[in-house]
Amino acid sequence: MAASGSSTLVFSSSFAIVTIVTVIAISSPVPSLASKPSNLPSPKRLPGFLSKHWHPITPQQRLQYQYETRYFYQRLDHFSFADLPRFPQRYLINSQHWVGPSRLGPIFLYCGNEGDIEWFAVNSGFVWEIAPRFGAMVLFPEHRYYGESMPYGSRDEAYKNATTLAYLTAEQALADFTVLVTDLKRNLSAEACPVVLFGGSYGGMLAAWMRLKYPHVAIGALASSAPILQFEDIVPPETFYNIVSNDFKRESTSCFNTIKESWAALISEGLRENGLAQLTKTFHMCRELTSTGDLINWLEDAYSYLAMVDYPYPSAFMMPLPGYPIREVCRKIDGLPSGTSIPERIFEGVSIYYNYTGEADCFELDDDPHGLDGWNWQACTEMVMPISSSREASMFQTYDYNYSDFQKECWKNFRVVPRPKWITMQFGGHDIKTALEKFGSNIIFSNGLLDPWSGDSVLQNISETIVALVTDEGAHHIDLRPSTPEDPDWLVEQRATEIKLIQGWINDYWEAKKTTFDM
Amino acid sequence: MAASGSSTLVFSSSFAIVTIVTVIAISSPVPSLASKPSNLPSPKRLPGFLSKHWHPITPQQRLQYQYETRYFYQRLDHFSFADLPRFPQRYLINSQHWVGPSRLGPIFLYCGNEGDIEWFAVNSGFVWEIAPRFGAMVLFPEHRYYGESMPYGSRDEAYKNATTLAYLTAEQALADFTVLVTDLKRNLSAEACPVVLFGGSYGGMLAAWMRLKYPHVAIGALASSAPILQFEDIVPPETFYNIVSNDFKRESTSCFNTIKESWAALISEGLRENGLAQLTKTFHMCRELTSTGDLINWLEDAYSYLAMVDYPYPSAFMMPLPGYPIREVCRKIDGLPSGTSIPERIFEGVSIYYNYTGEADCFELDDDPHGLDGWNWQACTEMVMPISSSREASMFQTYDYNYSDFQKECWKNFRVVPRPKWITMQFGGHDIKTALEKFGSNIIFSNGLLDPWSGDSVLQNISETIVALVTDEGAHHIDLRPSTPEDPDWLVEQRATEIKLIQGWINDYWEAKKTTFDM
Repeated sequence: MAASGSSTLVFSSSFAIVTIVTVIAISSPVPSLASKPSNLPSPKRLPGFLSKHWHPITPQQRLQYQYETRYFYQRLDHFSFADLPRFPQRYLINSQHWVGPSRLGPIFLYCGNEGDIEWFAVNSGFVWEIAPRFGAMVLFPEHRYYGESMPYGSRDEAYKNATTLAYLTAEQALADFTVLVTDLKRNLSAEACPVVLFGGSYGGMLAAWMRLKYPHVAIGALASSAPILQFEDIVPPETFYNIVSNDFKRESTSCFNTIKESWAALISEGLRENGLAQLTKTFHMCRELTSTGDLINWLEDAYSYLAMVDYPYPSAFMMPLPGYPIREVCRKIDGLPSGTSIPERIFEGVSIYYNYTGEADCFELDDDPHGLDGWNWQACTEMVMPISSSREASMFQTYDYNYSDFQKECWKNFRVVPRPKWITMQFGGHDIKTALEKFGSNIIFSNGLLDPWSGDSVLQNISETIVALVTDEGAHHIDLRPSTPEDPDWLVEQRATEIKLIQGWINDYWEAKKTTFDM
Repeated sequence: MAASGSSTLVFSSSFAIVTIVTVIAISSPVPSLASKPSNLPSPKRLPGFLSKHWHPITPQQRLQYQYETRYFYQRLDHFSFADLPRFPQRYLINSQHWVGPSRLGPIFLYCGNEGDIEWFAVNSGFVWEIAPRFGAMVLFPEHRYYGESMPYGSRDEAYKNATTLAYLTAEQALADFTVLVTDLKRNLSAEACPVVLFGGSYGGMLAAWMRLKYPHVAIGALASSAPILQFEDIVPPETFYNIVSNDFKRESTSCFNTIKESWAALISEGLRENGLAQLTKTFHMCRELTSTGDLINWLEDAYSYLAMVDYPYPSAFMMPLPGYPIREVCRKIDGLPSGTSIPERIFEGVSIYYNYTGEADCFELDDDPHGLDGWNWQACTEMVMPISSSREASMFQTYDYNYSDFQKECWKNFRVVPRPKWITMQFGGHDIKTALEKFGSNIIFSNGLLDPWSGDSVLQNISETIVALVTDEGAHHIDLRPSTPEDPDWLVEQRATEIKLIQGWINDYWEAKKTTFDM
């Protein structure tokens, strides 16, 4: 295996992903992004998210929501007439509570993101829970090139090379959603039924963009934790790691400091004779570490993930975790007896993340190195998100984003040249306030400030109908998650506001339709 | 030559086109759309426009406006990462009056349509004339696959087959404009300068669509004679020919009736022994007619063209013509001595169109059968515009639109399957009022009611900023034409309103920018 843990430029997303089909690394025709020899300190990567450590859907979860699985044959390139093979797009559908065309029953469409759609479905309980009260149909179309929605017949073929991957773009995904829902509505004589979009993370970006690009297709969008501004020079590239760092600092300055100091300690340890062996032992690695950089990446990932899922109640989104897991991590780090070494403190801390259930005897650095190929491709083409780590505010190693290195890595790995300015040309981003104010309507940007991606989203109301819902204690698209008895009041209120806003869009739409009919 | 005059399904547009490079019919690798054996009555076609009878740019016209000609290398498929060759997009640029970035000088961008961009430039005098008072840069980017903006190195290669033509779509053209102007602005440090879009006919559709799809790129659009609703079942397919017919009827009912009766007379004549020879003689054809259908097409074209350019003053947009040319045609038809046969009346009438200068000794049915290949491709892919001719209101032969025939013809000619529902999925169209009202701003839809395409455009104000300017006496995008001393008051007023609205967009933009700066 080329890869385990030697990841250097894994520009993986923060975004939920799961690859049901396990691909053996060695057989993957796409060069691993993790094959660059690692030096110290390792170049900063876009933090990965759910890819490596996703928590599989339990049979119980799968039974939680009822849906039918269907497939729709899509064009591979909507924007040309090139003679390319169609591919089956999977979608989940539930019409149980739908009041139908005669009553203009709404259609709730979740914009599938970079992973198996069933996984997003079970983790987006909000959509399922509110559908009955709206008499709404629920639709979860899968994003092309993920899950079962594979062009060219199989994942292996779809991911063969840059030519086959070429059509894995956000614009094509939006067109897929549009064609699917338009066709579905026509078949049901439901052309007049309003569509409401939902999406979290990259799916939230798609929901917001779809509302902007296809306003005639959907009447509104709930874009949860959608970092649509993480492009070019719109927000400072330090934003992400600064927020992660603040999440730790707010729990404990000494915890923050320990982590900030740990990198030098680990590097120093790694350089000593038998240092790597010692680190392997300290961190209970299943296999001998080959570089301190690998270990550092593993730790950095944990901190980033922890910030994203710093939910107020116990959850098992990616890993089984306690409520406010960062608090627990810092309790460990701070609470060990004086004299405990920094590496030992760090190990105990991240064990909260990697081993909360206590079932792991040892750790693999990277147990699904190829789960993110699709997102890596997207990051190397359109989704070019600059990320740095600042000297002062960040507890991570200092790192300055270097586009030139990034581009080289993309060429090496995919034989593709990124288009870092394309997304803002296509969807805007600079001066977003003016653009949205003048031209948008009916979008909720919901963000929790603990989520490191929140700094790249829209945090202020832009107009009466483009609304920012910001919660101090929220993390990555918590509002979309299934409700729990432990939901704090602010979360209950946030969801109530969202329901009210969505109801408002639908009522407005119904009213306008009524006026048209009356005329 | 496969073609002359035997055109059956020439779904040519109403839209301005000129092909500088003359292509010999026989050498064109694209099968001629005019090769189907013609029967009587011939199936109704989308009326052609400027293709066959375009009036070349005079040296005087070329000197009228100063511009530099430049080329920008564009991706062939903006929406995928397929490794395709780039192509040079030609654009005309004039910065003479531009007040530059420091004063947020506007950029006037004309959305090039299906033809040589120089031809649109000289025929869109309005843009040039108003630029100085706005301190605006003028930009005329050419539409891909037209003029000099050829993919694959040459027109022959670009038009080789469905594979090479695949990227000739409206979405790609809009992306071309976006990439070009974004890059240009960046190079000039003019990112903050507002862009205003202009366009006539298909170019007007592009301008309106670009405003909808790329609101962050342009602050407003003047969409002149843009039939954005001529798709699917949005407007009745009889609209176009009904308006042409009304244009004649309003001048003279007897003229209308003579034309309406002429088809049967011509067909009957053609069926007689030596009938075609007689018709050849009556209509001063340079070559012997081989079918009455060819003649009928030639006449129908003339009537449609006349309606489009039924300008109140003498013009030479397509052909040198008197003011209100339909009036002149009807004067001829009505004014001949009693006893003059219907074919003779018709000939004298269309001579106003085909031979106003009196220079022609005889007529060719179709002197540029391949000039419209590009538009024919577009009509066979995205721009599927249903058109019929009604029994009562139309003076043309009755014809019911038949999609199935259309599709077969497209397959035969281009080996491509049309996507008749795609444009409305992509840009909307159904319930356009709601969509635009809720989501659009800063678009002027200007239409003259004599223009047969006006029935497929937006004729009512939709909101405070989506405005319909409708003139009873206007024809096809007359407002974009250069001003003349003979301009009627209503035209002068219309242009003044347009200037005022555009100034309003720019002022609003400047105001918003100022607020941002002040903040």
